[in-house]
Amino acid sequence: MATRMDGRQLAGEIELRLQATIAERLAAVGRPPGLAVLRVGDDPASGVYVANKEKACARVGITSLGAHLDAGSSATEVLAAVQQLNADTACDGILLQLPLPAGLDEGPLLLAIDPEKDADGLHTLNLGRLLKGEPGPRSCTPAGVMALLARHGVALSGQRAVVVGRSILVGQPMALMLQAADATVSVAHSRTPVLAALTRQADLLVVAAGRPRMIGSEHVKPGAVVIDVGIHRTESGLCGDVRFEEVEPIASAISPVPGGVGPMTVTMLLVNTVVAWCRRAGVAHDLGDLVP
Amino acid sequence: MATRMDGRQLAGEIELRLQATIAERLAAVGRPPGLAVLRVGDDPASGVYVANKEKACARVGITSLGAHLDAGSSATEVLAAVQQLNADTACDGILLQLPLPAGLDEGPLLLAIDPEKDADGLHTLNLGRLLKGEPGPRSCTPAGVMALLARHGVALSGQRAVVVGRSILVGQPMALMLQAADATVSVAHSRTPVLAALTRQADLLVVAAGRPRMIGSEHVKPGAVVIDVGIHRTESGLCGDVRFEEVEPIASAISPVPGGVGPMTVTMLLVNTVVAWCRRAGVAHDLGDLVP
Repeated sequence: MATRMDGRQLAGEIELRLQATIAERLAAVGRPPGLAVLRVGDDPASGVYVANKEKACARVGITSLGAHLDAGSSATEVLAAVQQLNADTACDGILLQLPLPAGLDEGPLLLAIDPEKDADGLHTLNLGRLLKGEPGPRSCTPAGVMALLARHGVALSGQRAVVVGRSILVGQPMALMLQAADATVSVAHSRTPVLAALTRQADLLVVAAGRPRMIGSEHVKPGAVVIDVGIHRTESGLCGDVRFEEVEPIASAISPVPGGVGPMTVTMLLVNTVVAWCRRAGVAHDLGDLVP
Repeated sequence: MATRMDGRQLAGEIELRLQATIAERLAAVGRPPGLAVLRVGDDPASGVYVANKEKACARVGITSLGAHLDAGSSATEVLAAVQQLNADTACDGILLQLPLPAGLDEGPLLLAIDPEKDADGLHTLNLGRLLKGEPGPRSCTPAGVMALLARHGVALSGQRAVVVGRSILVGQPMALMLQAADATVSVAHSRTPVLAALTRQADLLVVAAGRPRMIGSEHVKPGAVVIDVGIHRTESGLCGDVRFEEVEPIASAISPVPGGVGPMTVTMLLVNTVVAWCRRAGVAHDLGDLVP
């Protein structure tokens, strides 16, 4: 039976590290780290996500600097809010909560965020930095997967990894991080003809396809490590992209849904913010192992 | 016997297209496209490369705006030259010829180039755009490979592609371009344990490892398309990363060395310059098929 990779537990451990990192450097920097979650309009799910992020900030000692703009805000008004946060010396991380209200184009607004304050790690320049192997904020969900793999001692160098899904949020940066760790990476997607033929070669299988329960035992090599990035609300509860009950008996380790990758995403947002706080103050941090 | 994919011929065909594209839009734009190859110091190989690029510009009707700075130039002086070209309205493309003299760090100088004028397509922001599937100048060598594949009618959607090598110049952007064309892409590198086991799955094998004659018949599935990006000067002449005489009899198509991928790189530099010229003038271009 596979080891369950517990993201809640690891997220809690990393939060303790962040608390310590902040406490030890607070006097040197002279102010706590600041993260601004910028919310526009009243999408109810976004409200829950923003509240969760602000609670997580409070737990580790990051100041929440968020602003909440009216649903009727113009692109110019949102841009002005971003630029104000760019200029705010107490602000180390900026996150524009998506989705924006209809009529607002997220592209230019995301690009307007100072790349050094890009808490999500999804700014075009930061994706380029990841591709080049240069330092910079890293995309949170794949960085969370890397932390989960490291925590469970999963060796990557020389291993075959298959990533299912090629989204800009997960699949693409995931493949680059695994490759930077010297895995031999293949990316499968909706146009891959015989998926199982590829995924059965994987020592490490990361599934981020966004299709409920698409991966079963026929897709998995016995003994593989399986990471499930999907999360779906169904009539019978939450499920991932993996048929957990089928795959758990043959995998060597597997991340459950919920409680696997999910809790790691917010934690890596905090990591990006604290790393930026240290960098901007010219103070060394001790979080390098969490920045793949 | 495999079809030989003739890069010299295709480069010539594309140059004719560029001539026509420029001639048809010259009146509307009011000036010819301009490409600045910025050379620092006296590396003799660089001298040859720069001269070749300027000759290619002359053939299609691009003005060469290059500058040649002294080997003893400071970083500040080179930066000033880059900034002057950024501000020059007659300049559509800038290329900083590498290597720079010892003591000059290329990183900040390359980043200082206006991304819209990045003729090489290697600016961090443009690599991020490639990753995101957004328009922008594309890395020349992999874009040249895509043109060569298209010219020979090689279908990519649903095909297995293996890229050997993960350099920022070739392997990484190559994998992204093939993936954007719906191939299922694997990237092999020096830490891949059993290379042939992976490469023999490839319908398309792109070799950019920089190791003379490393790929032989044992690495190639019969009927595969093989692209050789390597070029090495040996006692017995030029050779690639592929043992051509072994692979040609089993491949369905193969790019020779020399005369395969090599001639395409300079041509794609011209393509990036002409596309930027059109974009900056707000004039539609007809080169979309060459910008993967």
